[in-house]
Amino acid sequence: MTMTDPVADMLTRLRNASKAHHDTVALPSSKLKKSIADILKREGYIADWNAESARVGETLNIALKFGQDRRPALSGIKRVSKPGLRVYAKSTELPTVLGGLGIAILSTSSGVLTDREADAKGVGGEVLAYVW
Amino acid sequence: MTMTDPVADMLTRLRNASKAHHDTVALPSSKLKKSIADILKREGYIADWNAESARVGETLNIALKFGQDRRPALSGIKRVSKPGLRVYAKSTELPTVLGGLGIAILSTSSGVLTDREADAKGVGGEVLAYVW
Repeated sequence: MTMTDPVADMLTRLRNASKAHHDTVALPSSKLKKSIADILKREGYIADWNAESARVGETLNIALKFGQDRRPALSGIKRVSKPGLRVYAKSTELPTVLGGLGIAILSTSSGVLTDREADAKGVGGEVLAYVW
Repeated sequence: MTMTDPVADMLTRLRNASKAHHDTVALPSSKLKKSIADILKREGYIADWNAESARVGETLNIALKFGQDRRPALSGIKRVSKPGLRVYAKSTELPTVLGGLGIAILSTSSGVLTDREADAKGVGGEVLAYVW
């Protein structure tokens, strides 16, 4: 299957699985998606992830995270830059999400970083998504 | 009861009542709180509100709003400006919330407005809250 926006597909699957209180979600993997999963884990929005070699390509398994009240740790996720309309942020104009309550995920020359990491490194980049 | 931040109290009550799926929430009223309730209704985050004369002062009754799946229309609310740390935005630097998915509520010289209304009027003001 050819997808026009694999990252949007990943975010949609995460959003839907969170709302439906699924424990895990599996999707086609990629280097970029693994970097995003890594940030989501580091920032506490998912429980864990791994990549599994499948007969064709690689599968990314993501374990979602829920609080004691069954509320998802990931309450929202939004694609920002899109293939049809790329959104970039300068190092001096990095986005903040809900006044620091959420994170922005950026693709930068130093790799995939959160807004805070990009700020610490003094780099800008493509604004892939907001997570809160 | 003397409160140091009546708006924060209102937002906390709304947040808690939404999470607990209460139908209504009642709290001490004020002109500012009624303006905020008015915006929340206009923007679809609450079902309705009214102010009721009580023996002492006035009570603000807010009817919360839930989707068919029982998800609250108001998924999050955050106090921005606080008595101890006021936050102001210029008309040229108005905040946007989650790329337009949410709203900022501002107290301006033209009244209490959303970020979009303040932008249309070309005014800045005190950033009372983010709602999404």
